[in-house]
Amino acid sequence: MIFLTRRATFSASHYYWNEAWTAAKNEQVFGRCANKNGHGHNYTLEVTVSGEPDSETGFVLDLKWLKDVMEREVLSAYDHRHLNLETTEFAQGKMIPTTENIAIAAWNRLEPLVTAGGGAQLSRVRVYETAEIFAEYRGEA
Amino acid sequence: MIFLTRRATFSASHYYWNEAWTAAKNEQVFGRCANKNGHGHNYTLEVTVSGEPDSETGFVLDLKWLKDVMEREVLSAYDHRHLNLETTEFAQGKMIPTTENIAIAAWNRLEPLVTAGGGAQLSRVRVYETAEIFAEYRGEA
Amino acid sequence: MIFLTRRATFSASHYYWNEAWTAAKNEQVFGRCANKNGHGHNYTLEVTVSGEPDSETGFVLDLKWLKDVMEREVLSAYDHRHLNLETTEFAQGKMIPTTENIAIAAWNRLEPLVTAGGGAQLSRVRVYETAEIFAEYRGEA
Amino acid sequence: MIFLTRRATFSASHYYWNEAWTAAKNEQVFGRCANKNGHGHNYTLEVTVSGEPDSETGFVLDLKWLKDVMEREVLSAYDHRHLNLETTEFAQGKMIPTTENIAIAAWNRLEPLVTAGGGAQLSRVRVYETAEIFAEYRGEA
Amino acid sequence: MIFLTRRATFSASHYYWNEAWTAAKNEQVFGRCANKNGHGHNYTLEVTVSGEPDSETGFVLDLKWLKDVMEREVLSAYDHRHLNLETTEFAQGKMIPTTENIAIAAWNRLEPLVTAGGGAQLSRVRVYETAEIFAEYRGEA
Amino acid sequence: MIFLTRRATFSASHYYWNEAWTAAKNEQVFGRCANKNGHGHNYTLEVTVSGEPDSETGFVLDLKWLKDVMEREVLSAYDHRHLNLETTEFAQGKMIPTTENIAIAAWNRLEPLVTAGGGAQLSRVRVYETAEIFAEYRGEA
Repeated sequence: MIFLTRRATFSASHYYWNEAWTAAKNEQVFGRCANKNGHGHNYTLEVTVSGEPDSETGFVLDLKWLKDVMEREVLSAYDHRHLNLETTEFAQGKMIPTTENIAIAAWNRLEPLVTAGGGAQLSRVRVYETAEIFAEYRGEA
Repeated sequence: MIFLTRRATFSASHYYWNEAWTAAKNEQVFGRCANKNGHGHNYTLEVTVSGEPDSETGFVLDLKWLKDVMEREVLSAYDHRHLNLETTEFAQGKMIPTTENIAIAAWNRLEPLVTAGGGAQLSRVRVYETAEIFAEYRGEA
Repeated sequence: MIFLTRRATFSASHYYWNEAWTAAKNEQVFGRCANKNGHGHNYTLEVTVSGEPDSETGFVLDLKWLKDVMEREVLSAYDHRHLNLETTEFAQGKMIPTTENIAIAAWNRLEPLVTAGGGAQLSRVRVYETAEIFAEYRGEA
Repeated sequence: MIFLTRRATFSASHYYWNEAWTAAKNEQVFGRCANKNGHGHNYTLEVTVSGEPDSETGFVLDLKWLKDVMEREVLSAYDHRHLNLETTEFAQGKMIPTTENIAIAAWNRLEPLVTAGGGAQLSRVRVYETAEIFAEYRGEA
Repeated sequence: MIFLTRRATFSASHYYWNEAWTAAKNEQVFGRCANKNGHGHNYTLEVTVSGEPDSETGFVLDLKWLKDVMEREVLSAYDHRHLNLETTEFAQGKMIPTTENIAIAAWNRLEPLVTAGGGAQLSRVRVYETAEIFAEYRGEA
Repeated sequence: MIFLTRRATFSASHYYWNEAWTAAKNEQVFGRCANKNGHGHNYTLEVTVSGEPDSETGFVLDLKWLKDVMEREVLSAYDHRHLNLETTEFAQGKMIPTTENIAIAAWNRLEPLVTAGGGAQLSRVRVYETAEIFAEYRGEA
């Protein structure tokens, strides 16, 4: 079994705010991230699939296909967007767009496509918020 | 003469919009960057000063002093901020927060301090918007 | 379950020397690393914790808290220090400060704090000595 | 148990071509990678071994030994070479030199040496074709 | 005046060979680079233009325009190609595709377009062959 | 004219101390860098030469020759060394091994060799102490 990984980047705005809390509590817990004007990052999305290399192509998965899926399912929704205002997962305070939750959301967007069409298993989604911080989800509780 | 450089990073939101234009023209010229919800980047600010190393310290400039100046003059104003909404240079459409203009604005914030207090000349300010795009200003027309 | 990672850097000196060996054997085994004047590295410490994102914050762990713990427990002891001369784990030849042993030592410094106060499990500690060499410890025999 | 990793780079040419297919099918499946003049990459080979640090040296494995093994077993065969024309694994169309297959081939070259002589287990071989694409093999079906 | 830079990457094969020399001399001077099967690199092309930011857009140059020009004029000719066999500058031994000569060739491809259509001056072309080696041309004798 | 650059790395220890000052003043000015046990860095040495590409080789300078000169003249003296204790420039407090002074010292070691034997001019020496701090010397007062 081989683990094959592809990276892509997107630039997005976000802020952290729990609608059930007072402004004071939001500011106390989230600090500068509670600024509702938003701030932003160059995120890196790193998607790992696993499987056997196909004997005819040597591919676990066609990386052009994976690139297209990543662009259509994740980047087209997140890149040059405000995550709190323009995305189905994070709009209207449904979920706070932390790095952890972005990794889960990207997994949920990608997993059905990879499983159905790619001939491989989605193994891991990693999201870098900066060079110092990243979150990883493997689809496990 | 030695050129001494220090880097720091900040995370900010921005969008591109010329108030004198129609929405259609803004979208045509600026594309996805015209999204007024904003998007964001991890910017890198790279500040270069020049001068002779001091014979007693071996320093062109005390890098702790420079770090403090960069944080007080630039990062405290830009980091975790929306450049179009919260900064003196870019608020109310005064100037569009392109990488080029951010480099000029950072130069203008830093130059008087470095010249007055640092014992060296500000030589160059470079701002990276992403790993692929950066702008550099040397204080020259 | 999410794996959340934070990186930090520290600059330290070290050398490799087994007090039970002759100088000749130390030089034969450790080569240039046996120079007792010491040499140094910019180390990167990469700490991974795992857990469920909290439903109120979206955090597996508060990354500001983790940053403070990393600084207080590891960086304050190792940064700008000579590991063989100034650290409880490596002083007086108790343990040789190889990348492997630094990873174990950092785990031992961090694990009680993360478990007790962070609401997550320490999952992995990785230490990069250079861009080419790194060691990883997962708390497993 | 510690996982210890060493990286090295090599520059090589390759192309993708299945001899059992027509030229049209090769071009359809492999696109620009089917150009038989070849194109190339700066590959990064990342080798991870696992074991207990030796009590006398603090080493899981002597990294100078590992460097020599990587150079002798992999880099001397792949660096500044055309993988499709000059390597035992990929010549004469035996196997297509995808990143996946290069990771498996490097594992097969390294595993007997590490097991026999290094006192540690080969745990993982990762090959980066670019900064965006990498494949990882752990010796598992 | 601002210096604005955009990076892009391409993957290509090349070898070094002077047709006027014997094979022995080619091998003596060029070493492993004289292997006529070719080897390859992930090149980074870094293009710097200079000018005043436009008062309406804040742009020295439209970076989308520059990206298109770089792709059309350089990457479409070099990416996934064998430089010695498939490019007008380097085919048939006309010029040896060293990093130095690739930087000059890229300048010559880009300079007329940038000057004519971009509203800025081409200031610098830098080509990285690896992370350790790069060449820079400024259009000056 | 082409500017051709080669990078190499070395790992060294240093501290900052002015022998003409009291310990208190050294600690006040140099802070943690005044720790006489030393601390260390992975330095990057970046050497730029300039000249015309040779018409026969396409080289400004033979990069293998430059690599050998960098290793013989700089790395053999600085790598795995304590700069304050083991180098002609910095021993016995002659000069404080700041990044600025290391850049000048490396220039002085390399310049005669490059001028005499390389057929090119030494144009620039840059030394990175960390990813955030670097100094550059061009041989100019």
